[in-house]
Amino acid sequence: MDGGCVLCNDHDQQVLWRDELCRVIWVNDPDYPGFCRVILNRHVAEMTDLPAQERDWLMEVVFAVEHEVRDTLNPDKINLASLGNMVPHVHWHVIPRWRNDRHFPGSIWSAPQNDNPQLPVTADMIERLKQRLQQLAP
Amino acid sequence: MDGGCVLCNDHDQQVLWRDELCRVIWVNDPDYPGFCRVILNRHVAEMTDLPAQERDWLMEVVFAVEHEVRDTLNPDKINLASLGNMVPHVHWHVIPRWRNDRHFPGSIWSAPQNDNPQLPVTADMIERLKQRLQQLAP
Repeated sequence: MDGGCVLCNDHDQQVLWRDELCRVIWVNDPDYPGFCRVILNRHVAEMTDLPAQERDWLMEVVFAVEHEVRDTLNPDKINLASLGNMVPHVHWHVIPRWRNDRHFPGSIWSAPQNDNPQLPVTADMIERLKQRLQQLAP
Repeated sequence: MDGGCVLCNDHDQQVLWRDELCRVIWVNDPDYPGFCRVILNRHVAEMTDLPAQERDWLMEVVFAVEHEVRDTLNPDKINLASLGNMVPHVHWHVIPRWRNDRHFPGSIWSAPQNDNPQLPVTADMIERLKQRLQQLAP
């Protein structure tokens, strides 16, 4: 634990699933329905700081989340990223993308391309995704 | 193979290592010395389109590259990303980051923060990294 790290605890996080290694949280970004993060529970900066077994398991969780996001929301693309420049605590962004979303084809950190995206995502789809993530079986 | 896909062949790519599944290329970005990509050889859009065994091996290669980049260049952070919005063919960016680089703490796709980064990377370090990547043993 690092007392100054905002990812070292789950305050203000909507945790959908967790195990001993990591947790899956709902990002709740209005531009990116279905955007999730997989956050390592302990404070480690880089993937290669982890033992191989934990690294593999973390990626299994990331890919299990990707699978559920694709299966329920049918996005045009998935973006995966582990950056951590602002918060050097391992966390993976799992981001469904659509061709008419706010930044496509740029990254979500790039300049916006579309001020009024109308994404093909219903409240039912979101509810189903949340339920499936709560029952994640990586 | 997809005839219209720029990642389906290695034209104009500086390939440092390859096996049956993937290759490691040198990006040669003047702002990001040591920036590499791990590119799947065949045309597949998403990580979860791959069989688990291939997905695992691809990540082993990504983490082996991360290890060599960290060990030779000692960056402040590593960024890993699989986006593919422009080219939906699985490829991983492995990007060494420094606190005074062109976009820190933003992503490399964000607005620039520093017009004249002076990074602590020598030609010898780059040469050593290239040699080690050519002998990669994931």
